[in-house]
Amino acid sequence: MRVVVYGAGQLAQMMYLAGSPLGIEVQAVDVNNDTVVHPVSKSPLDTSLDQALEGADALTVEFEHVPEHLLEEATKTGKLMPSIESILVGADRVREKALLEGMKVANSAHRIVTHLEQLDECIETLGEKLILKSSRDGYDGYGQWRLANKEELPELKRALATLNLEKVPLVVEKMVPFERELSLIGVRNKQGDVRTYPLAENLHYQGQLHVSVAPATHVDDALQAKAHDIFVKLAEGMDYVGVLAVELFQCGDELLVNELAPRVHNSGHWSQSGAVTSQFENHLRAICGLPLGDTSAIGPSAMINIIGCSSFSRELLSIDGSHLHWYGKSVREKRKMGHINVTTDSYTKLGEKLHDLSQYLPLEYFPKLIGEAKRLKG
Amino acid sequence: MRVVVYGAGQLAQMMYLAGSPLGIEVQAVDVNNDTVVHPVSKSPLDTSLDQALEGADALTVEFEHVPEHLLEEATKTGKLMPSIESILVGADRVREKALLEGMKVANSAHRIVTHLEQLDECIETLGEKLILKSSRDGYDGYGQWRLANKEELPELKRALATLNLEKVPLVVEKMVPFERELSLIGVRNKQGDVRTYPLAENLHYQGQLHVSVAPATHVDDALQAKAHDIFVKLAEGMDYVGVLAVELFQCGDELLVNELAPRVHNSGHWSQSGAVTSQFENHLRAICGLPLGDTSAIGPSAMINIIGCSSFSRELLSIDGSHLHWYGKSVREKRKMGHINVTTDSYTKLGEKLHDLSQYLPLEYFPKLIGEAKRLKG
Repeated sequence: MRVVVYGAGQLAQMMYLAGSPLGIEVQAVDVNNDTVVHPVSKSPLDTSLDQALEGADALTVEFEHVPEHLLEEATKTGKLMPSIESILVGADRVREKALLEGMKVANSAHRIVTHLEQLDECIETLGEKLILKSSRDGYDGYGQWRLANKEELPELKRALATLNLEKVPLVVEKMVPFERELSLIGVRNKQGDVRTYPLAENLHYQGQLHVSVAPATHVDDALQAKAHDIFVKLAEGMDYVGVLAVELFQCGDELLVNELAPRVHNSGHWSQSGAVTSQFENHLRAICGLPLGDTSAIGPSAMINIIGCSSFSRELLSIDGSHLHWYGKSVREKRKMGHINVTTDSYTKLGEKLHDLSQYLPLEYFPKLIGEAKRLKG
Repeated sequence: MRVVVYGAGQLAQMMYLAGSPLGIEVQAVDVNNDTVVHPVSKSPLDTSLDQALEGADALTVEFEHVPEHLLEEATKTGKLMPSIESILVGADRVREKALLEGMKVANSAHRIVTHLEQLDECIETLGEKLILKSSRDGYDGYGQWRLANKEELPELKRALATLNLEKVPLVVEKMVPFERELSLIGVRNKQGDVRTYPLAENLHYQGQLHVSVAPATHVDDALQAKAHDIFVKLAEGMDYVGVLAVELFQCGDELLVNELAPRVHNSGHWSQSGAVTSQFENHLRAICGLPLGDTSAIGPSAMINIIGCSSFSRELLSIDGSHLHWYGKSVREKRKMGHINVTTDSYTKLGEKLHDLSQYLPLEYFPKLIGEAKRLKG
C-alpha cells in the first residue's frame, strides 16, 4: 500500500518509519513547491504529484495549514483522510468553535471578533481577562495576545490595528483558570472503530509544548472516560478517519476543549515507546482500513521536546528506557529539532530519569525539565 | 552519522528504520553488484561504493557470507564492526569450532572431515548418530546431512561424493540429545560495555526458524547467567563490537554452543516490540560508540516468521499487541517474507494470542504455530 502525506516534516518522517514494517510506503509532498519527496531524506522522488496521487491508496496531512487548493485536489480523488472539512476545522478557529458549539462540546466562553470595537463588548460579556487568538495560521504561540485587565485595552488595540479582522477574525476567549493542560489522542478507522490513548499532561513554555507525561498523573477512570466520550462525539460527528488530537483544559472534574489538531500530534509522540501501538502506526492503520492497534500504555512515559538546540551529549542514551528521535533538520531558534522519549514503570522512577536526563542537556533550552522531574519524584 | 551495511535484505532494512530516529543514516550495499542502495526501497543511491565507505562512520554486515574481498576492503578503512575475523567465524564452521575450542566454550563433540574415509573414524569416536554440516555457505538447513545409524553410511558417502571436502571441509558433530534450542542475543559496544537479552526459545522446521518465544519459558537465573557468561567470554575474547547471536542447545542445566551469527539475528526480532531497546537499535548504538540501550523484556513475546507465503488476512492486526513486519520481497518457496511479533503480559495470554493468530494464517506455512499456542496456553 502507498500513502501520500501533505507536508514533509518530522511527522511525515515518523509516519514513514511506522508504515514501512506494515508494507505501507509513505511519500511526502513538499507543499512549498508541490514536489513529492522521500519523507526521511527529503530527496525528490521520481514521480509527479499527480502520479503520486494516482498511485496512492490514501492521502493524508501532517499539518492543517496545507494550501486549500491542494486539499481540494486531494478531495477529488476520494482518498483524503481525514476529510477536508476536518482538516479545515483544525486550520480555522472560527470553524473549530462553530463545530464545538454545534456538537455541544464544552469549550471556553468566547466571541468572534471582526472589528476592534467588539472588544469592549467582549470585556462586558467575558470579563477583562481575555486571550485573543488569530483564527488562522497561528500556532506554537504565534498570533496570540493576552489582556490582563481593561486598562491594557488601548495598547492592545494599537497592536492589533494592522490586522485585517474581516478576512481573518479573532477568537476572543475568556481566560479560564484551568489547573492543567491535557490532551487526548484518539484514532478512528475507516470501519468506524475508535481507540483512545491515555490522557497526556502537557507543559508549555512560550506557546510551545516542552514536556508531555502520559498517562497523565492523577487521572481517575471517570476523567479518562469523559475525555474518551468527547473524542467519540467529535470523531463520529465529523465522520473522522485517522488520528485526531484534542487539547483540553482541566478545571476540577471538567474538561474544556481548547483546540483540535486533525493529525498525529506532538503530545502523542510518547506512544512510540510508551504505548503498545504508536500514534503513527495507528494513523496509518486507520486510513488504510486496517484494524486499530492497542493504545494501552506500557508504563509511565515522558516526551521531552528538543527545541532550538542541536548540541547535547548523546550519553543521555545511557539512561535505560530513553529513546532519541532526531529529525535531521538544521537548527533555528524555537525550531523543534527532535524529542526524547523515556518510559519506565513508576512516576517516581520517571522523575529520577528526567533528573538524570537534565545532566546531559543544556538546560536553558529545557526550562520545564527540572520542575517536572521534581514533581514526578514527589 | 552514517552506517554502511553489506547486504541489502530485511536486516539492513530494519537497521535503517531503527537508525533513522537516532540520526543515523543507514545505506546498504547490494553485494551482487557492489552498488549502494536505499535499504528500504532498494533504489540505487547517487554514490559509489568507494564514496560510501569514505563517508561512513561505521561499516557492518547483515550476513556473514559477504565476499571476502569486500570485507578486506572494508577492513582497510578501520571502520568495519564486527571485525573481519569475527564475521568469518560466522561464515566458516571450521573457524567457529576452532574459536569455541580455543576459548573452552562448551559445544557439540565434533571432527573436521576433509576426506570421506574419515567418516568411519567419526562413527568410532562420536557414535553413529551424526550431523554433517558443510563448513561454508550452508544456512537455513542447506548443506546439512544426518546419519541415523551406520547402515546409512554408504548411501551418505555417495551423496557427498561430488563435494570438494579439501576446499570446503565438513564439520561432523555428534547428534546431541538436547531438550530445546535457545539463543542468546547480546551486544557489545566500542567502549566494551555488554548487554544481553533474555534467552529466546526457537522452533525450527526443515532447518528454518519458524517461531521464537522470548523470554524463553522455564529459564531460571542460573541458566540466564550461564548464557550471559558464555556471551561475555566470546564477545570479549573476539573483541567483538555489535550484536552477536549465540545459538545454543539446552541439555538439562548445560548449554552447548551450536552456532554463532556475527550480526542481528532472526531470533532477536521479538525485541522490536518485546524489549525496551531492539537489537537493531542496539547494534547501531554499539558500532557508533553510543551507550547501549536496556535489553529487558517488556513482557512475554513471540516472533512468527512468514515463510514462502504472501497471502494472509491483515485482520491479524486486530490482535492486541501484534505487529507486522513485512519485508516487501517477491514471494518464493522457503523465502522469509516477513514476521509477526506479539507481546503480552503472560505466557497463557501469549498462547491465546497465537491461537487467535492461527485463524488468520494459512497454516500449511506455519507448521509450528498451533503446537506452540497449545504449549503456552498450558
